[in-house]
Amino acid sequence: MTQSASAYARAHQSDSLDRLFEFLRIPSISTSPEHRDDIQRAGEWLVTRMREIGLSRAEIIPTAGQPVVYGEWLGAGPGAPTLLIYGHYDVQPTDPDEEWNSPPFEPTIRGELLYARGASDNKGQHYVHLAATEAFFQTEGAPPVNLKFLIEGEEEVGSPNLGDFIQGNAEMLACDAALISDTGMVEAKTPTITYGVRGMAYMEVEIKGPKRDLHSGAYGGVAHNPLQVMTEILAALHDDQGRVAIPGFYDKVRPLTEDERAEFKRIPFDEAAFRQEVGSPALWSGEAGYTPLERLGARPTLELHGIRGGFVGEGQKTVIPARLLAKVSMRLVPDQDPLEIAQLFEKRVRELAPPTVEVTVRTLSYADAAVIERDAPAMRCAVRAYAEGFDADPVFLRSGGTLPVVAMLNKVLKAPVIMMGFGLPDDNAHAPNEKLSLDNFRRGINTSIHFMQELAAACA
Amino acid sequence: MTQSASAYARAHQSDSLDRLFEFLRIPSISTSPEHRDDIQRAGEWLVTRMREIGLSRAEIIPTAGQPVVYGEWLGAGPGAPTLLIYGHYDVQPTDPDEEWNSPPFEPTIRGELLYARGASDNKGQHYVHLAATEAFFQTEGAPPVNLKFLIEGEEEVGSPNLGDFIQGNAEMLACDAALISDTGMVEAKTPTITYGVRGMAYMEVEIKGPKRDLHSGAYGGVAHNPLQVMTEILAALHDDQGRVAIPGFYDKVRPLTEDERAEFKRIPFDEAAFRQEVGSPALWSGEAGYTPLERLGARPTLELHGIRGGFVGEGQKTVIPARLLAKVSMRLVPDQDPLEIAQLFEKRVRELAPPTVEVTVRTLSYADAAVIERDAPAMRCAVRAYAEGFDADPVFLRSGGTLPVVAMLNKVLKAPVIMMGFGLPDDNAHAPNEKLSLDNFRRGINTSIHFMQELAAACA
Repeated sequence: MTQSASAYARAHQSDSLDRLFEFLRIPSISTSPEHRDDIQRAGEWLVTRMREIGLSRAEIIPTAGQPVVYGEWLGAGPGAPTLLIYGHYDVQPTDPDEEWNSPPFEPTIRGELLYARGASDNKGQHYVHLAATEAFFQTEGAPPVNLKFLIEGEEEVGSPNLGDFIQGNAEMLACDAALISDTGMVEAKTPTITYGVRGMAYMEVEIKGPKRDLHSGAYGGVAHNPLQVMTEILAALHDDQGRVAIPGFYDKVRPLTEDERAEFKRIPFDEAAFRQEVGSPALWSGEAGYTPLERLGARPTLELHGIRGGFVGEGQKTVIPARLLAKVSMRLVPDQDPLEIAQLFEKRVRELAPPTVEVTVRTLSYADAAVIERDAPAMRCAVRAYAEGFDADPVFLRSGGTLPVVAMLNKVLKAPVIMMGFGLPDDNAHAPNEKLSLDNFRRGINTSIHFMQELAAACA
Repeated sequence: MTQSASAYARAHQSDSLDRLFEFLRIPSISTSPEHRDDIQRAGEWLVTRMREIGLSRAEIIPTAGQPVVYGEWLGAGPGAPTLLIYGHYDVQPTDPDEEWNSPPFEPTIRGELLYARGASDNKGQHYVHLAATEAFFQTEGAPPVNLKFLIEGEEEVGSPNLGDFIQGNAEMLACDAALISDTGMVEAKTPTITYGVRGMAYMEVEIKGPKRDLHSGAYGGVAHNPLQVMTEILAALHDDQGRVAIPGFYDKVRPLTEDERAEFKRIPFDEAAFRQEVGSPALWSGEAGYTPLERLGARPTLELHGIRGGFVGEGQKTVIPARLLAKVSMRLVPDQDPLEIAQLFEKRVRELAPPTVEVTVRTLSYADAAVIERDAPAMRCAVRAYAEGFDADPVFLRSGGTLPVVAMLNKVLKAPVIMMGFGLPDDNAHAPNEKLSLDNFRRGINTSIHFMQELAAACA
């Protein structure tokens, strides 16, 4: 008998890592235009790799923004199930660079951890499935299911063109189940199937007051300080119960069922360890009436990211800043409509703004939330695959993160979306020293192999 | 008869401007350490110029910070009054540089205006008195009063070492009156004697929450966002009546007398023109119960200058910032004690801070407010000098700006401090396109000449 796919993957771990290193070295940051060429290079690298592995089709498909990489192998035939695997080859910016212990685009192994921007989010995680696919081609001749890979380049900027792409290519992307590894496990020993993701509305608030920066000694007290206005507006967006203070914000929030709250209670959550991991003197009590995990995954939130403008250098300057720009995002849950929420946000900000300033509110991106049926057949296949890959039953989690693609795939392709994430809570996904657990990388490949086998068996 | 000093000054205006240009070309920015050499060069330039003009002593005197330039000529003899003239040779930073219409350190005349960083604040203004002194030496052989020049290099960073310098050199600096041209006129046709300046406490508030920047999708709702905390604290520093909401803040504020309020009413103030000059859609009603000019000059204020930290780049990043730093200053009036106010500020900020963050409050600088007797003999000399220099009676104003030196000179040397300012409200003192009116420069030299003559005559 030939070697099994799992045995092959185990024997060729270091080859897989070498290939992943090549991928991680490409600084494919999608949030700033100067990395456009790197984005292209990362896409080309993927196409080459897909062809080497044995996919019958692999190409870069342009969009209005960064291109999508699409690969497929349909050799399992029309009788076999078709699995669509989604990932993204773009990564977050790396600032503040001085806080990295090794360069963000020079993958470095320390202990059992692989450090690099994109290691966990998301190159390392979707590479798991390419490695699993390669193992089938190298051993059993071919994977047991038809495979489609959809790897986008704009996830970190809110996937502005992916919805149109999926809509416009629904036939090409048709599948029986979609698989995404872009989420995390609640802890290293507890594999986790994420069945819900939050939506998003990312806003910019610009406040213009004086036509130029003013000397506070000459104008303070009569010229209204736009930074004072900005802090007063932003502070008014939460009430003293930790709730988002935007009228109508909670109107369409789907209440948590008893069953879901029970599932949340099953999830191990060590509050002291979480606090230590965060590093704050204390955790926030947040929205009254909900547990930390419920607030993290199943309740909407509003976060302030930064305020640009004014004097922020060393020393002192007594300036009344002429204009300020705040970055604010809201994480949303079913059935909040992101565009409606963006409108409610703008309405509230305008109500709060005094007549002394000019306010502009922009929606930079938005995404639907999604919750997937936990008893779909593909979900059961995933549970069995985890038993092989991690020797443990997974828990079901609603995640706080936003994966716009989940709602898109679920809605357009009408397929269950299985979020099989191999990230860990301390992976520093959007921060310095991003890392991936090598143990999870290995177990992930094995889980992916077993998931494809389970899926084939379930439909046989 | 020889030419009068006034006639000489008129005839040599362009020479005076040429010399001032040399001075303005030196980028003596005191707020950032990389300009240390320029500060030194500006001091040396002044010493050379003072010697050329005819002062008998001119030297750079080191302090714990940037050096002081001291010059004197005591040839009028012990029977004549001694006038101390204060100025500062350091200037504000120039950012945002792209908003300057000509380079900040390349003095440029457009129409009757001289554009350069420091043109109004303060090189151009104290150079007025050097030009007046030169006119006396070139015509009447010598000035009619003894002269002492004290030109410091740290005004724009809050004069941290000037108090010690004056205290330690009180004998050298002893004088019958002090003259400062570092304030402004209420409008181009109305010469203005400033008889009060506000004090200052410049604060930094640092808030640390998580030990690193966090992904808002993974932590939002449970990790308390330090920017949310910062905006809530800063917003709470004003109440809805425009008052500073720090307990005890107003306790020691000396109430405005009826006489002072009447003097304020005499000052022309065109609210519509002021609004247009500011450029905001509307002016702020500010602290309830006070007119705009009272709020600008005789009431304390609190201003927010900037908040450093978080994500402020193009596009979007969903980060919960680990730490933030806010710059806040308070303008104070007699008899508020800046150090006590700084303590009240810190106490209030600490009260407002939740246990989820670590707060550090720093006092970057502080300065006493001052109000000078309006009926001192030297004040009457100044009024008469203005009649010659500007063909108009000056108004008396309490200014909103902060000149730490006023309280220092007044307290230590026990001399009346005459603030004879030639700046205009739209001089952009701390902003791009700083300028000085050439008409005011010429009239200022003539007023200075007459002031020295009046002072000599009053004491004769």
